[in-house]
Amino acid sequence: MTTATGNRRIVLRTRAGGIPQADDFELRTGPLPAPGPGQMLVCNRFVAAEPAMRGWINDESNYWPPVAIGETMRSFAVGEIVESRADGFAEGDRVTGLFGWQDYAVVEPAAIDRRLAPDEPGPAALGILGLNGLTAYFGMLDICRPAPGDTVLVSSAAGAVGSAAAQIAALQGARVVGIAGGAAKCARCVEEFGCAAAIDYKTEDVGEALGRLCPDGVDAYFDNVSGAISDTALRHLRPFARIAVCGTAAITDWADWPQGPRVERHLLVKRATMRGFLATDYAPRFAEALAALRGWVADGRLRYREQILDGLERAPGSIAMLYRGENDGKLVIRL
Amino acid sequence: MTTATGNRRIVLRTRAGGIPQADDFELRTGPLPAPGPGQMLVCNRFVAAEPAMRGWINDESNYWPPVAIGETMRSFAVGEIVESRADGFAEGDRVTGLFGWQDYAVVEPAAIDRRLAPDEPGPAALGILGLNGLTAYFGMLDICRPAPGDTVLVSSAAGAVGSAAAQIAALQGARVVGIAGGAAKCARCVEEFGCAAAIDYKTEDVGEALGRLCPDGVDAYFDNVSGAISDTALRHLRPFARIAVCGTAAITDWADWPQGPRVERHLLVKRATMRGFLATDYAPRFAEALAALRGWVADGRLRYREQILDGLERAPGSIAMLYRGENDGKLVIRL
Repeated sequence: MTTATGNRRIVLRTRAGGIPQADDFELRTGPLPAPGPGQMLVCNRFVAAEPAMRGWINDESNYWPPVAIGETMRSFAVGEIVESRADGFAEGDRVTGLFGWQDYAVVEPAAIDRRLAPDEPGPAALGILGLNGLTAYFGMLDICRPAPGDTVLVSSAAGAVGSAAAQIAALQGARVVGIAGGAAKCARCVEEFGCAAAIDYKTEDVGEALGRLCPDGVDAYFDNVSGAISDTALRHLRPFARIAVCGTAAITDWADWPQGPRVERHLLVKRATMRGFLATDYAPRFAEALAALRGWVADGRLRYREQILDGLERAPGSIAMLYRGENDGKLVIRL
Repeated sequence: MTTATGNRRIVLRTRAGGIPQADDFELRTGPLPAPGPGQMLVCNRFVAAEPAMRGWINDESNYWPPVAIGETMRSFAVGEIVESRADGFAEGDRVTGLFGWQDYAVVEPAAIDRRLAPDEPGPAALGILGLNGLTAYFGMLDICRPAPGDTVLVSSAAGAVGSAAAQIAALQGARVVGIAGGAAKCARCVEEFGCAAAIDYKTEDVGEALGRLCPDGVDAYFDNVSGAISDTALRHLRPFARIAVCGTAAITDWADWPQGPRVERHLLVKRATMRGFLATDYAPRFAEALAALRGWVADGRLRYREQILDGLERAPGSIAMLYRGENDGKLVIRL
């Protein structure tokens, strides 16, 4: 049982469109919520910042309805059960789920994604053993399907998802080329994240670099960005290429639907496949994926970075940080 | 053995870009070619006109190199062997393959796609039992994969490929909505080609019609056109939708890469798949497909139209006819 009496929540204040900024949110304090029968009270220890949160806020067609104005910001979190009125869940259990940017959440068992292993660090459960690792795993293995010797291109290859996707491709025997912004991130792609080479999109001509580094073209492209980088990647496909559409970080705003070069002819001529996906659709295979990810992490073949921000008040600015590329690995807010 | 002494060929005269017009070709007459050892002389009876021929001419990235200036125009054809120096092929055999827009072709056994059945009409071997039927079969069954009750959208649904694709979807138990140009073609989609409804893109607002006819969205889209119609279709996808990219008839020219609304966010939000394909990649499964197509044609469940033009001199204008939508079914030139 907790001794706290209040709950701080970060709620959505306004829906400005584009990349959510710190002042689109506000902190509200209210009473500690009480779990009803079959519910539990979770005290959040870590909450996540994800590029996908932009899409959870903007009032556009999406896989989930947008967060309402005045509603607690939706986020994945790791917390500890401090009061349980639900069968099978005990005080002290560490669990993860969509508990939101707040100190405490009242949740039902169905809202618990999983219990953490005893030695599992909280931030990892939000990153490499959470949404990011699962996204990389299914996008790479189910859509990109790299065979040994394939050339695989990954955009945002130093990011939380991209770095895992690149390493998973390399573990399949593929030759991986990463795209990242800046020399430091590019060095990390090669030194830590399994890439044979990396392209700095901020200083290099991506098309020229792709022609040089992938002279026979790209068998698979794990796309985190859309925009000009992806337009260029499409011109370097090999026949039967696979494109996993994971994110659109390079597009600031989808409200006025942005234009770009048409993809149909690329796909037709190369008999290529472009497929959007969400890790959450693969829930029946999470156990398989987590076992593989844990094994690779344990034996040092899957490396990851995390950046921890301290304090719930850091959450509102965290999404914009991601889109400015200022984070170093998975961005997690510690409460 | 033939008694002819000359061969007329339609050769590519100029590469103007865009839709090939009649005067981009010229007729040349030369000596009758003679088959060497292992070769045979085929007298063409029917040659095809296909929308894909635009792509075979324009000097753009494609799955085949472009037809050279002065070269006989590449086309599928049905002909009769009039002289054989190849084992296993006899005079009088009717065969189909890429024999070109010409009276006679010298070909090797590897260039023969197949022998026609004794009772098989030549035009059908170029259409419903040729490239068009095979394209519809694999695009619909391998990519669109309609389940009973699915809503399937087909563009150019009165065309040679689209009409077959629509009927194959209906045969799987799907509800099919066709898009075609003009009231007559739309009526044909519903009365002959298995569509539950048809949208006349020339007079109707396609988005409004889709919202009305497919209120729950589209599970699969067989795309023959690209352009504005496909942009609209993308806004009406259901989750996990499949798009078969078969043709791009609505785009006049790919030389200056045309712009359009970006597809990535549609694909991501709907976890949709967009895949380009060519029937020729499915050669190992042609026997299966032809058996199915023949069966459906024989029992009246797969209907098709053909329009025959008489004389090789009609070939040069035939591609532009297709792009003007003036043909009524598969366009075939009879020699």
